[in-house]
Amino acid sequence: MSLDYLFNPKSIALIGAAHSEEKLGGVILKNLLKFRGRVYPVNPNYPELMGLKTYSSAQDIPESVDLTIIMRPASEVPEILKGLQDKTMCVIIASSGFAEIGQSELQDEVKKIGKEIGVRILGPNCMGLYNPYQRLDTFFLPYERLKRPRKGNVAVVSQSGAILSCLLGAVREANTGISKAIGYGNAIDIDESDLYEYLAENEETQVVISYIESVGDGRKFIERAKMLSEKKPFIILKAGKGLSGQAAAFSHTGRLAGKYEVFHSILRQFGINEAGDFDELIDATKALSYYPSIPPLAKVGIRGVGNRVCIITNGGGSGVLAADECMRQGLEVTKLPDDKAEKLRHVFPYFYGINNPIDLTAQVKDEDYIIALNELRDDYDGFVIIALPNVMGITEGLAGMIKRAMTDINKPVVFHIPANGVARRLISLLEKMKIPVYPSPERAVKGLKAILK
Amino acid sequence: MSLDYLFNPKSIALIGAAHSEEKLGGVILKNLLKFRGRVYPVNPNYPELMGLKTYSSAQDIPESVDLTIIMRPASEVPEILKGLQDKTMCVIIASSGFAEIGQSELQDEVKKIGKEIGVRILGPNCMGLYNPYQRLDTFFLPYERLKRPRKGNVAVVSQSGAILSCLLGAVREANTGISKAIGYGNAIDIDESDLYEYLAENEETQVVISYIESVGDGRKFIERAKMLSEKKPFIILKAGKGLSGQAAAFSHTGRLAGKYEVFHSILRQFGINEAGDFDELIDATKALSYYPSIPPLAKVGIRGVGNRVCIITNGGGSGVLAADECMRQGLEVTKLPDDKAEKLRHVFPYFYGINNPIDLTAQVKDEDYIIALNELRDDYDGFVIIALPNVMGITEGLAGMIKRAMTDINKPVVFHIPANGVARRLISLLEKMKIPVYPSPERAVKGLKAILK
Repeated sequence: MSLDYLFNPKSIALIGAAHSEEKLGGVILKNLLKFRGRVYPVNPNYPELMGLKTYSSAQDIPESVDLTIIMRPASEVPEILKGLQDKTMCVIIASSGFAEIGQSELQDEVKKIGKEIGVRILGPNCMGLYNPYQRLDTFFLPYERLKRPRKGNVAVVSQSGAILSCLLGAVREANTGISKAIGYGNAIDIDESDLYEYLAENEETQVVISYIESVGDGRKFIERAKMLSEKKPFIILKAGKGLSGQAAAFSHTGRLAGKYEVFHSILRQFGINEAGDFDELIDATKALSYYPSIPPLAKVGIRGVGNRVCIITNGGGSGVLAADECMRQGLEVTKLPDDKAEKLRHVFPYFYGINNPIDLTAQVKDEDYIIALNELRDDYDGFVIIALPNVMGITEGLAGMIKRAMTDINKPVVFHIPANGVARRLISLLEKMKIPVYPSPERAVKGLKAILK
Repeated sequence: MSLDYLFNPKSIALIGAAHSEEKLGGVILKNLLKFRGRVYPVNPNYPELMGLKTYSSAQDIPESVDLTIIMRPASEVPEILKGLQDKTMCVIIASSGFAEIGQSELQDEVKKIGKEIGVRILGPNCMGLYNPYQRLDTFFLPYERLKRPRKGNVAVVSQSGAILSCLLGAVREANTGISKAIGYGNAIDIDESDLYEYLAENEETQVVISYIESVGDGRKFIERAKMLSEKKPFIILKAGKGLSGQAAAFSHTGRLAGKYEVFHSILRQFGINEAGDFDELIDATKALSYYPSIPPLAKVGIRGVGNRVCIITNGGGSGVLAADECMRQGLEVTKLPDDKAEKLRHVFPYFYGINNPIDLTAQVKDEDYIIALNELRDDYDGFVIIALPNVMGITEGLAGMIKRAMTDINKPVVFHIPANGVARRLISLLEKMKIPVYPSPERAVKGLKAILK
């Protein structure tokens, strides 16, 4: 069975629906009110909840639904599940209280029942699903507490609900959007590999990021992860790298994390990208989602583009830090071609530094960046633009100039502009036209690296 | 001569004062209007500038001033300097156009004249000085373009003016303050070492950070840096680590950067702290400036505190990422003492994870953090608190509870709260009471590491 019943259901039952947002079942129901398909709350104590006719049990629902969400205490889940035979195709068990707190037998029982009645299960102990293309949101977090990112091209697959919510917050801060977000928790049935397979074919998804603490079936994981990363930019953040982290991961989802070094070297061998930490993951995601048209891996590990970077800055020191990070990331800050350097020396004031980085100094004007970009667009694979807005020559007009120039440049351009508030509007204008802006020189380089890799 | 004339002048002359902020000499004059001492603008074309009596030349000023700022084209600087004999103790040459663009002879001439007339020189090609304790601000950046941080305990010493302004912006974002900020540029006289020596004794300064591209006198540098780091927390960010970075650093300040590996191993040998990049420097600075009372290095490289860390989280995954970073930073996430774990298991719901990290789950309440902190305060050297505000149990009340508990806890506590906007007030309340908050688990751990190291 495809996961289409999970991602694109026509009808949803919520077992454990509640009347107010003080209960998790109430939060989920409220979030489901936006869904365009049919929603059936189940709660024996109410004839109606939040304006929807409510059913005493799943059996009373007048149709077989595509998706059922269970938000009831763990001990009740086996019986509830049995009652879903022939009533649903797919179940999200949001409840916790299973292997993650030592209740492995209960979890095994649930798994067995799921197989017997022939339904696919997401969870238990999971956040569920957010699919803005269907206005589908099964999270038990109120909107005021987690503002959802808009519709976009990034899929987030996370074992941990906490990290899922942090990643969604960060995606929103990065001014980009979500295609699908899934928290899969204890993964007794649908696991990361199934989700990779689905997302590889999903048209709305152009970038996939995945937070993993442990892997169930290692062979299947590698096969699907490899397949996905050959189709789309795909980055994994693996947690539980040290002994204490591994112990924490175990008690958190009840799956053994395994030796990180082994995991790491396998990913490397198969050309699957890995982020070092949370911020690296988000910095790369931002750049990739802004530049989804850069061709994906032509061969495993190699994009169809080179690694020559030109840095154009109005602050010498910031250019040096960017050049240092390029070196650490394996990007080449190659010399300007002699003829181009000569030409730029003619058009720019004598005190500009015509090297790579190009130093436009504190006397910079917006158009200087465009002059340099146009001159060098064929000589480099990507550009890091540093625009420190502390000098009068940097204005909001820079955004419009870049926009007009981008068609000709046709190479990825990333910006570093400090996030100290004085250039908030310039940053927002640039990001609206899909030029990513980073708060430090090093993070800008890491963003560019994600595109060029 | 002490640098007191530079940092705490009673009188200042500005050669190159201008009538409007469209000129750099006008920006500086405007910033000097806040200074409480005497200010003498020099410009032969105006009898008055911004309400201040203006002098045709330095010779006309009716006293010998403590500090003179020169903001005139490089070619004029030698003559201007000669005219300052017996008229000033100290000079800031803000003008650029010296060794950084190949004009080394001009720079040498200026250096020689400075020696002959017996004045100390900061610069040329430098940002100058910001000393909020004297309302002294010689920067050529308007306030609207660079909002100055408030009075505080962090001294910033930067070869690059661009990085100085970025660091000041970041210090302000970190909700902390500045004791002194100095951009020293080409350093023909006063260099980083002189500044370290001054700041080691400066009472307002409790933390020193220094951005360096190149070092003039290596022996002097090591001696002063070592002395400073034995007195106060002190962190260096060295740029120009790779070949392209080194070339960029040279064209930027006209001093050769030298081989980074050598520099790095010398710092290490002498127990002087180094940040890996801009964000690491700022994350460490924030924690150190919030916790200046933690005793400085008892011996080189060793603070008087241990490295046992307890992580208390309401999101399992975030706790795992923090534990991973602890491992990378050499901090120990040691097991909870058996008796304490037993006690916590009694007071907390059965589904909380009583390990290290302690997982308070999505069912968390504010007071749970306080219960755990109070129970474990004697067993750990520092605490990482992760409070994901996506669940209803995290409220602004947490800040007040932490405040009341801190006296008893008496160990450094750092927070991770995602910067997605929903907990802006909680973050601001915590930082007002000097608890640093970081936007990712890993950055919180790096902050704590800076304190415990």
